[in-house]
Amino acid sequence: MYNINQNNKTPLHIQLYHEIKKDIIENYKANDKLPSLRKLALEYNVSKNTVESAYSQLLVEGYIHNNYKSAYTVTDMIFGEFGVIKPINITKEEPKEQYLYDFFPARLSKDSFPLKLWKRLLNKVMEETLDFGAYSSGQGEFGLRVEIAKYIIKSRGVKCQANQIIICSGFSDSLGLLAKMIYEKYNTLAMENPGYHIVKKVFDSLGYKVKKIDLDKNGLKLDELNNSQSKLVFTTPSHQYPTGVTMPISNRLKLLSWAKDKNALIIEDDYDSELSYENRPIPSLQGLDNNDRVVYLGTFSKSLSPALRVSYMVLPNHLIPIYQNLFDVNVSRVSLIIQKTLELFMSEGHWDRHLRKIRTLNRKKHNLMKSLLEEKLGNTMRIESQGAGLAILINPVVKFDWHKLKQEAKKEKIKLYFAKEKSGGEWEAIRMGFGGFNEDEIVEAINLFSMIWHQCLLQRPKPL
Amino acid sequence: MYNINQNNKTPLHIQLYHEIKKDIIENYKANDKLPSLRKLALEYNVSKNTVESAYSQLLVEGYIHNNYKSAYTVTDMIFGEFGVIKPINITKEEPKEQYLYDFFPARLSKDSFPLKLWKRLLNKVMEETLDFGAYSSGQGEFGLRVEIAKYIIKSRGVKCQANQIIICSGFSDSLGLLAKMIYEKYNTLAMENPGYHIVKKVFDSLGYKVKKIDLDKNGLKLDELNNSQSKLVFTTPSHQYPTGVTMPISNRLKLLSWAKDKNALIIEDDYDSELSYENRPIPSLQGLDNNDRVVYLGTFSKSLSPALRVSYMVLPNHLIPIYQNLFDVNVSRVSLIIQKTLELFMSEGHWDRHLRKIRTLNRKKHNLMKSLLEEKLGNTMRIESQGAGLAILINPVVKFDWHKLKQEAKKEKIKLYFAKEKSGGEWEAIRMGFGGFNEDEIVEAINLFSMIWHQCLLQRPKPL
Repeated sequence: MYNINQNNKTPLHIQLYHEIKKDIIENYKANDKLPSLRKLALEYNVSKNTVESAYSQLLVEGYIHNNYKSAYTVTDMIFGEFGVIKPINITKEEPKEQYLYDFFPARLSKDSFPLKLWKRLLNKVMEETLDFGAYSSGQGEFGLRVEIAKYIIKSRGVKCQANQIIICSGFSDSLGLLAKMIYEKYNTLAMENPGYHIVKKVFDSLGYKVKKIDLDKNGLKLDELNNSQSKLVFTTPSHQYPTGVTMPISNRLKLLSWAKDKNALIIEDDYDSELSYENRPIPSLQGLDNNDRVVYLGTFSKSLSPALRVSYMVLPNHLIPIYQNLFDVNVSRVSLIIQKTLELFMSEGHWDRHLRKIRTLNRKKHNLMKSLLEEKLGNTMRIESQGAGLAILINPVVKFDWHKLKQEAKKEKIKLYFAKEKSGGEWEAIRMGFGGFNEDEIVEAINLFSMIWHQCLLQRPKPL
Repeated sequence: MYNINQNNKTPLHIQLYHEIKKDIIENYKANDKLPSLRKLALEYNVSKNTVESAYSQLLVEGYIHNNYKSAYTVTDMIFGEFGVIKPINITKEEPKEQYLYDFFPARLSKDSFPLKLWKRLLNKVMEETLDFGAYSSGQGEFGLRVEIAKYIIKSRGVKCQANQIIICSGFSDSLGLLAKMIYEKYNTLAMENPGYHIVKKVFDSLGYKVKKIDLDKNGLKLDELNNSQSKLVFTTPSHQYPTGVTMPISNRLKLLSWAKDKNALIIEDDYDSELSYENRPIPSLQGLDNNDRVVYLGTFSKSLSPALRVSYMVLPNHLIPIYQNLFDVNVSRVSLIIQKTLELFMSEGHWDRHLRKIRTLNRKKHNLMKSLLEEKLGNTMRIESQGAGLAILINPVVKFDWHKLKQEAKKEKIKLYFAKEKSGGEWEAIRMGFGGFNEDEIVEAINLFSMIWHQCLLQRPKPL
């Protein structure tokens, strides 16, 4: 007896379909005949069409056959095991760790995003004639690429045209795309050691061999690179990750000569050079290259928002046809709304203003944290890297209980970050992110941190 | 003589930095001494601090050394070749092919996107306390995952919890992520032939072997799959791409038994099953599985908008730790704004309403195109696939000049799409997309297409 309710919101043929399906699964054998349309229609006081719709659905799903003279029979399959459909309760809360102070070294504070302005631009963009029915350019919106080109030419000394730019959904996306593009030609990547662990992950996963090249005070050791036989290198010349070293012009030129001579490719990751507090941003390596040997990677995550998920890549000209050949040129990687709003943000001049604002804001936080660290930790610590980005890197200069530091931080609900965790090298430093705090929080966070720090000193510092 | 202008908007120390840099590149030799701070300050009527700032920038960039007694000297490098910076003119227009009628088979019409509603939701979301300063969950916003779970449980019969879902930026992104995740365990992919070329591309690029499995009227040939020795299969069971075949329940159960016995993994791509015009959507294969053997892929591109770039993937439970181990769980793949707006769109019930609207809208277009094709091409054509998705697939049944079809289409500015182009198999059909047109356009486009079609017939059709 099927449970069919004429007053139910679910259409009758769907109710019937569910009931018959259940019946077949539980009670029928292969080749059993189903009741005729007429019989069922009469029995449940529904139209023949209703029964036919239900049968038709069972037919396309393959539960029944339609035989000669329109008799419906069950297909030769046992459905029993699969028939049990249990209702599912969805868990509506996700467990999360809570910290009092989180020193995440790649964070901006919430108030640093121009929310009102962005909302206004979003509304303007949504008035326009955006086509949400179509896929859009795989390289990204042309207008946005023009704005990015103008910016990096002017501010980063990059040499490029908009047709060399690809809009991606973040650093890993840019790098993954590139790695796929050049695998035919290169199969060994040389990268900085210590360096950014995601780089190794991305290239590893695509089957590249990865060779680590040590650093000295000028960044990448060029002799070691030369000896590695690799013709592909990943570098962060303007603000080395994680050590903060800047590659001087002399080494940049040597690196470019190496690339020219070996027909090699340099991947320049310029991830946070907008955030320079003591000097101007270092002009890009790409801008010095005259031989089409540099891929330039940039992102909006460090200076605008990591939640937007927009990065970009400037290809040397010889890679453009390879990209076009390999990837779907009609499927973009970032939502059209986001691209168009960012384009407007840049073309109306807000990006330049935002950069000035964000530099000032973060310079203040940087200087505050630096002076507090110097004041509270004094000569028990050495600053390894400062003056740029969103973190100050420090190390103890006296015997130190690292294990205790981690334990105590956990106890006090402070989240700390260590260079080694994300760089795969032996080089260690504590990465004190300031970008996510406001100034009051910096004072409180460093107070608490300093308390813990002093518990971990195993030796008294030498007097000054 | 440096060109320093006190009235210029560019700060004095930056003007000076550029002038000295140019001077060094063009005129200095290694170890040449630069003028003292005092001398330059006097000569150009600027403060000593200004000169020091300029020198400091040259210092970090590595053009000069700072020696004993604060004398600055040029580093031992020849900069000549790299000194020439040419101004760059950015090309501001991108060349584009224009078509009169574009039969793209995966397009929605512009008016099918709920623009006003989406705008309202965007504004609501932007009022809320979104944190644009932080990275957000790598799996995607939990709230959005809950909404997706509710939807696919109810409408697609999927069995899942929100913690099994990963939000991705489109089909390729979902598939690429998955392919990286399971490479350790599987290295051969079996896929449908003909099938979606992007699948082959993604798995090829990661070093998988790809084996093609032929189809019959029930989809994937299960014997052939069994003989292939592969333990990983990609399939589109509800609406096979490109043939449109539905895998019946009997074969679904056999496929699941195969996966259970072999400890194999099935990738179910359910790309457009919302768009079913004659029957209800076929319940998912995943929902029949009791052994954690199916990965379910879905997307918002076909029913809401391809320009949003949002897709999702439901992992079987045993893959969740592998995902968490391999990927950055703190970096999302889709912009927070888009995720939050979509979440609201679903939780307020708009998604259900939209699906009803979009089904009705596209059913009309589908039926119109189908009847026009039947009327105009009559018995010279066979419909290969219809009743679902965004295209009707047809083939000529008489001798036909395919080359001429392509030529004439180009001449008349009609863009046609062929199954073979994107499926890598031998199976051919013309994919007549209707989703991008309004009803008037369908009439005009089919009129023009029919005119061309009849020029390509090399044989008169048999009388009915």
